[in-house]
Amino acid sequence: MTTTQPDPAAGAAVKAADRAHVFHSWSAQGLIDPLPVAGAEGSYFWDYDGNRYLDFSSQLVNTNIGHQHPKVVAAIQEQAGKLCTLAPGFAVDVRSEAARLVAERTPGDLDKIFFTNGGAEAVENAVRMARLHTGRTKVLSAYRSYHGATAAAINLTGDPRRWPSDTASAGVVHFWAPFLYRSPFHAENEAQECERALAHLADTIAFEGPQTVAAVILETVPGTAGIMVPPPGYLAGVREICDRYGIVFVLDEVMAGFGRTGHWFAADHFGVTPDLLTFAKGVNSGYVPLGGVAISAEIAATFDQRPYPGGLTYSGHPLACASAVATINAMAEEKIVENAAEIGEKVIGPELRAIAERHPSVGEVRGLGVFWALELVKDKETREPLVPYNASGAANGPMAEFAAACKRGGLWPFVNMNRTHVVPPCTVTEAEAKEGLAALDAALSVADGHTHAR
Amino acid sequence: MTTTQPDPAAGAAVKAADRAHVFHSWSAQGLIDPLPVAGAEGSYFWDYDGNRYLDFSSQLVNTNIGHQHPKVVAAIQEQAGKLCTLAPGFAVDVRSEAARLVAERTPGDLDKIFFTNGGAEAVENAVRMARLHTGRTKVLSAYRSYHGATAAAINLTGDPRRWPSDTASAGVVHFWAPFLYRSPFHAENEAQECERALAHLADTIAFEGPQTVAAVILETVPGTAGIMVPPPGYLAGVREICDRYGIVFVLDEVMAGFGRTGHWFAADHFGVTPDLLTFAKGVNSGYVPLGGVAISAEIAATFDQRPYPGGLTYSGHPLACASAVATINAMAEEKIVENAAEIGEKVIGPELRAIAERHPSVGEVRGLGVFWALELVKDKETREPLVPYNASGAANGPMAEFAAACKRGGLWPFVNMNRTHVVPPCTVTEAEAKEGLAALDAALSVADGHTHAR
Repeated sequence: MTTTQPDPAAGAAVKAADRAHVFHSWSAQGLIDPLPVAGAEGSYFWDYDGNRYLDFSSQLVNTNIGHQHPKVVAAIQEQAGKLCTLAPGFAVDVRSEAARLVAERTPGDLDKIFFTNGGAEAVENAVRMARLHTGRTKVLSAYRSYHGATAAAINLTGDPRRWPSDTASAGVVHFWAPFLYRSPFHAENEAQECERALAHLADTIAFEGPQTVAAVILETVPGTAGIMVPPPGYLAGVREICDRYGIVFVLDEVMAGFGRTGHWFAADHFGVTPDLLTFAKGVNSGYVPLGGVAISAEIAATFDQRPYPGGLTYSGHPLACASAVATINAMAEEKIVENAAEIGEKVIGPELRAIAERHPSVGEVRGLGVFWALELVKDKETREPLVPYNASGAANGPMAEFAAACKRGGLWPFVNMNRTHVVPPCTVTEAEAKEGLAALDAALSVADGHTHAR
Repeated sequence: MTTTQPDPAAGAAVKAADRAHVFHSWSAQGLIDPLPVAGAEGSYFWDYDGNRYLDFSSQLVNTNIGHQHPKVVAAIQEQAGKLCTLAPGFAVDVRSEAARLVAERTPGDLDKIFFTNGGAEAVENAVRMARLHTGRTKVLSAYRSYHGATAAAINLTGDPRRWPSDTASAGVVHFWAPFLYRSPFHAENEAQECERALAHLADTIAFEGPQTVAAVILETVPGTAGIMVPPPGYLAGVREICDRYGIVFVLDEVMAGFGRTGHWFAADHFGVTPDLLTFAKGVNSGYVPLGGVAISAEIAATFDQRPYPGGLTYSGHPLACASAVATINAMAEEKIVENAAEIGEKVIGPELRAIAERHPSVGEVRGLGVFWALELVKDKETREPLVPYNASGAANGPMAEFAAACKRGGLWPFVNMNRTHVVPPCTVTEAEAKEGLAALDAALSVADGHTHAR
C-alpha cells in the first residue's frame, strides 16, 4: 500500500501556512483545525503523522473513481502537455468528445452539453435556461436539498446553508418532497407518501399560478440532505405535472450522477427524463473543476437563433474535459458503475441493515449503490434525532464524538446533522467496504451512549 | 515555431462533434461557426488547416503567461501524479503555498485567501462577505462593468449581458464611473471628471441611505467594458467615501490583476487598498479553473468565531493551486510583469497613438501594460460609435468586417461593441507586438471605410 513516510514537521509547516493564509469554506476560521493531508490513492488518504484513513466520504462525494486513478492522471498529464486552456468559442477535440460521452449516457434527448466549472454554476445556468425558455420567473425547489452556494443556487437550496444568503424575492418557492421516515404528509407507506407528495406539489403549483412557474428542480436522490430515495412513481408524477403546465423539469445529479447510485444517472432507476440535468463531481471525480448542464432538444432549440445569455471563461475547459473523457472511459472499461451497484446490493445494504438491528442509535438505513444514509436517533420509537436540526457547538456533541470515534478507527466519515452517510468511491472493493463498515459499527457504540436506551 | 501538421479532415471531425453536442456560451447555437483549434504555444494558436493566429485577445484575457508555458505545464503534470483533488476542509501544501504567494502580492492586509473556481464565484463570495460583515444589503456597481454570469455577479454587471438575467430586486444599484472620452458628467478634463464622478457616487450613496449600503464594487480598470483607466485620485476618493460610511470597498481584478496592467495588481498603480479583492484568469492563466477573494484582516476577523456561510467542493483545488504556484513563480523569475509594463510603454502605447493619427476610425486609444482599448468611431468630432450600443446582425457589420480582416491577417482580435482591445499575453515580445500592431493597422482600413471620412 502506497503511503508517504511520516514527516510531522512537514505537516506542521503545511498547517501553519494554511492557518496564515487560507480562508476555508463553511467554517469559523478560528475554530477549525484542518488535517494536513500528505497523499491519497484509491479509497484511502493519509496525513503526515503516519495515519491512514479509509475515505467513506469520497471527499465531498466526488471521487467516484477513487483517488489518483492512473488512467485519469495520465490523461491530465498528456493534455497538459498538449493544450491546457482555450476560450469557449472554439471547437476542441477533447471538449467535443467529453460532450459526446456525457450525452451518450444522459437519458432521452439530453444531447447538448453546456460545461461549467462546477455544480453551482450548472444550476445557475439551468435556471437561466428554464426562465428564458418559458418566459416565467418562479422556480420550485425542495426543502431538504442542496443546489450550490452562488446566489440563485443558494436560494434554491433547502437546508440551513441558505439562511445567511437568502434573498426572499429571488422567485424561489420551496415545497416538500417525499421522505417517509419523517413524512411531511403523515403517510404510513411509500405509496401514500408518493400520492400525497404529488398532491402537495400540484397544489403548490396551482396556488402559485402555473403560468408563473418556470421550473421544478429536484435532486433525483437528495444527497447531503439525507439520501431519500424517492418512492416509485414520484418522479414520473412530477414529470407529468410539469408536462401539464409547460414547466421545465430539472434534475440535479451533481452528487447522484456518474455511478454513485449504481447507474450512470440516478434518473435511470426511475425511467424519467428531465428537460435539463445538472452534473459535476463524478463526471471527472473532481480531478479538475468541471460541471455542466445536459439540455433537451426542445430547450436547445430555444437558443438556436436567439443568443443564450450566459457563459464563463472556462466553459468546456480542455484540461477538465480531457479528465472527463478518461474518467468516463475508465468507468466503462472497468465496470465501475456496475461495481457500485453490486457492492451496494451485496455488501453495504445488507451489512447496514444488520448494523441498524444491533444499534439503538440507528433509526433508519436507506440508499442504493454507494449512496447510503444512517439516521441517528435518540429513540427508535419517537425517531427524535440524535442532535437537533442545525445544531452546533455543545448541542452537536454526540455527532462530533461519533465522527471522532470513526477517525480514531481509521475511517473518514461523512457527517451531516444527525446523519452519517456511507458514500465511498464507486471503486470501493468488498474488503474495503467491510473494513469501513466494521469501523462504523464500532464507532456507533459512541452514538448509542447518547440514546434513551443507554 | 511549433505547429501541428495541417489535417483538415481532423478539424472537420472536431467541428462536427462540437456542433452535435457542445452548447456554447453567449451564442445563438445555430448562428455560430466555431474554429477548430489544433494547438497553441506562447502568443500563438493554430487551426487544422495550417492557419496560425497571433493571439491579441489572450483567449478571454486570461493567458497572461502565454499558452503552454513549460514550467506551468510541468507543475500540473507533477501535481497530477501526486494529488489531483482534495476537499476544502483539509490543509494541503500547494493550497497553502498558492495562498501565501497571492497574499504576498495583494496590497495592504489582504492576507487571507478564499479560493473559488473562477471570477464569478469570487464576486459572489465577496458580496456575501460584505453583506454579512456590514449587516447591510445593497451593493453599488458601475455601468460599463462586467463581474460574471452567476445570479449575484450578473446583476452587478453593468453591460447588456445583464439584461436577460436581471433580478430587479437583488439589492443592486448601478452608478456611473469616470470615463472622460464619453463623460457621463460633461467634464472637460480628467480632474473635473474625477471630482464629478466622486460627487455622483457620494450623492448616490446619500440618496440610497449609507446605512443600507454593504459594498461598492469596481473593476480597478474596467476590462471588457472598455479599459477606462481611472483618473488620478478617483479610487482614493472612493476609498475615502467607503471609509466614511463603513462601506466595504471591493476591487474586482479578475481581468486587470496578475500583470495585465504592468503591475501585479492594477490597484498598485493608484496606491489604494480595497477591503476585498477578487481575482481569477491571470492567477494561473486559466490553465486550471481557479479564482478567489483576498480578504482584509478586519473582514476575516468577522468570520473567526462565526462560520462563513459559503463554499464549494473545489475551493483550493490542489491541481489548480499547483498551477498558480508555478505561474506566479515563473512570472516573478522571468520578469513577466515587468515585460508587460515595458512593452506597453515602449511599443504598444506609442504605436497605437501613431495608428490613431493615421486612421479616421480610431477615436481614442487608452490603456496601460498589455491592456489597451481602441474606440472605433464614425466621426472623430462627434465620437459617434462605429456601431450602436449592443448592436447585432447587420447593425454590427462594420465591427464584424474589421474582425474578419484581422483574422485574414493572422491576428486574433478582442472585439466588444465599437471597440477592439489589444490584450496580448504579458509574455508578448517586442517583435510579436509589432507584428500584431501591423496587422491591426492594416485591418483598421476596413473600419475607416465605415467612417464619415470615407
